[in-house]
Amino acid sequence: MTPNNILRIALDGMGSDEYPFPELQGATQATTEFGCQILITGDRALLEPALSQLNNRNTGNLIRIVHAPDRVEMAASPAFSSRSKAHNTIACGIQLLRDGKVDAFVSAGNTGAILANGLFILGRLQNARRPALTVLLPIPTGSCVFLDVGANSDCKPEYLQQFAVMGTVYAQTVLGIRSPRVALLSNGEEQSKGNQLVKDAHAILIQNTELNFIGNIEAKEMLSGAAYVVVTDGFTGNVALKTTEATAGMVKEMLRHAMRSTLRATLGGSLAKTAIRSTLRPLDPNEHGGAPLLGLNGVVIVAHGRSNAHGIRSAIGAARKAIRQNMLPKMQARITKQLGTRENPNE
Amino acid sequence: MTPNNILRIALDGMGSDEYPFPELQGATQATTEFGCQILITGDRALLEPALSQLNNRNTGNLIRIVHAPDRVEMAASPAFSSRSKAHNTIACGIQLLRDGKVDAFVSAGNTGAILANGLFILGRLQNARRPALTVLLPIPTGSCVFLDVGANSDCKPEYLQQFAVMGTVYAQTVLGIRSPRVALLSNGEEQSKGNQLVKDAHAILIQNTELNFIGNIEAKEMLSGAAYVVVTDGFTGNVALKTTEATAGMVKEMLRHAMRSTLRATLGGSLAKTAIRSTLRPLDPNEHGGAPLLGLNGVVIVAHGRSNAHGIRSAIGAARKAIRQNMLPKMQARITKQLGTRENPNE
Repeated sequence: MTPNNILRIALDGMGSDEYPFPELQGATQATTEFGCQILITGDRALLEPALSQLNNRNTGNLIRIVHAPDRVEMAASPAFSSRSKAHNTIACGIQLLRDGKVDAFVSAGNTGAILANGLFILGRLQNARRPALTVLLPIPTGSCVFLDVGANSDCKPEYLQQFAVMGTVYAQTVLGIRSPRVALLSNGEEQSKGNQLVKDAHAILIQNTELNFIGNIEAKEMLSGAAYVVVTDGFTGNVALKTTEATAGMVKEMLRHAMRSTLRATLGGSLAKTAIRSTLRPLDPNEHGGAPLLGLNGVVIVAHGRSNAHGIRSAIGAARKAIRQNMLPKMQARITKQLGTRENPNE
Repeated sequence: MTPNNILRIALDGMGSDEYPFPELQGATQATTEFGCQILITGDRALLEPALSQLNNRNTGNLIRIVHAPDRVEMAASPAFSSRSKAHNTIACGIQLLRDGKVDAFVSAGNTGAILANGLFILGRLQNARRPALTVLLPIPTGSCVFLDVGANSDCKPEYLQQFAVMGTVYAQTVLGIRSPRVALLSNGEEQSKGNQLVKDAHAILIQNTELNFIGNIEAKEMLSGAAYVVVTDGFTGNVALKTTEATAGMVKEMLRHAMRSTLRATLGGSLAKTAIRSTLRPLDPNEHGGAPLLGLNGVVIVAHGRSNAHGIRSAIGAARKAIRQNMLPKMQARITKQLGTRENPNE
């Protein structure tokens, strides 16, 4: 942070599907609410008129545009984005973070490109094996830290242990849970269940006295809040996360269909609409403050590609909390301690 | 089948959570509807009075009890169930199938025990590497054959290819789809996506001209019906299936909560209830005819542990269709052909 303690966030101005308005409006909300300064990376010719269109004179001096003409498309390969497009909005924002010009980077853009640029430009925390894409799932008592959901398709048991450490620190610092229960996602609760990776990770985690490890859990227990940190490999995590989203979307679509199927149902639906909408709100990814890339040497938050202004503001809010709570130095300390006591860092 | 062409099914009489009434009522429905003969395995002292309580004189001669006093509990380990309890309802039913006394076996009991007994007593189809637990997922155009959802936590790429062959034959014979689209469940559609297993399986499947392979799909495409056969390893499949069930359950629970939250919503809910219930019916596992264990040398169908009578009847219906359509010999022929052209059976 700057000497006068104003938080500075770099925000990808051309990341979301509907860019740049979700970004500009989200940034405006965040500056008003959090009093932070936001550096928006993007094409000045696009962002400047859009920003003045929003007419935000009050917050104008807290939002600055940093010119980065190129956008990494959602379908672009990470390698392409990091090598060929040095002036893209993601690389530019992460460079600002590396150079200490900002305290965090937030983007609703291509996750693979954010990961690749993060690894290339920022690097990892010392002795962090792999960064993990981390989401907050809605559970009855709040949120569950679920990782890895896509950064590493093939994992070793030691990675999963480190994900448990990183997830614990995130739950402690950002969610404020003192000793979060940690579980492994599996196909059964018994220790004997799981594929080889889960069995091996279980054997390591059960010996780890620094973590509040409760064993294996299934999806049902995960969603009903049995643990605050749920660890898995990036392939299974990605499939599980997308299955959750797809199923929730399917049920909501069936519901919409039901509400149009008869006159009676249409009337009923119009009466219940407000209550249904507010009850199902926790399923909206815009509510969850984005997905941190844990393990990188900097606070990097990935917002959903379909983010609206509220989603961008939530992601900036998550970045702010991570910085205010010193998430990064605490995570580094725990990773170092973990390796000192349990593992050979050169392995 | 018997010479007079009456279908004979062995049914585990003590499998479901609420046994024996779902079994007895489901069997009664099935005999009436399909005209098949059902041999119910279970404790005669329990089943006989329960059956006469149902008062089914018409169908009485089509339902027979085969005494098997022991029940494999849901939490029992598969090894225990197959070794220590030779007189359990599952082993007894599968022995009837092996000995040609029946044409199929249906159980709502412990899946692991059914698999273990099936492997031990029936064995596999010739050159079938691994049996796969297979479910039918609801999709807009009907059902999608999804396998493996739990029989094999660790798979080789060749297993996945064989699952694709077995799933194709099941979709053709039981669902009546001529050339079902086959896909690999992955964390992205591109060929470059997936963990190592998915990448290796993709490389094999894309060269297989006997299958209508369309590449990788994500959960969203799976649920929206992009393929009729979706292949994955038993760990990922089990996690994905349970995630679907847990998410659908969570959304339905949130909905119920919403419908009680205000007076207006309660009124709306009571008006829309019938339409909602009928629209969401496809999500009920009782509608889907149970999960076949493909690759065993016999037609074995696992019904959901929470099956009601309708669920048991559906599972018997699925068994009937598989037998009538000669599913087993067709599957054997395809497996043999596949190995002849593509693989070394001794590998």
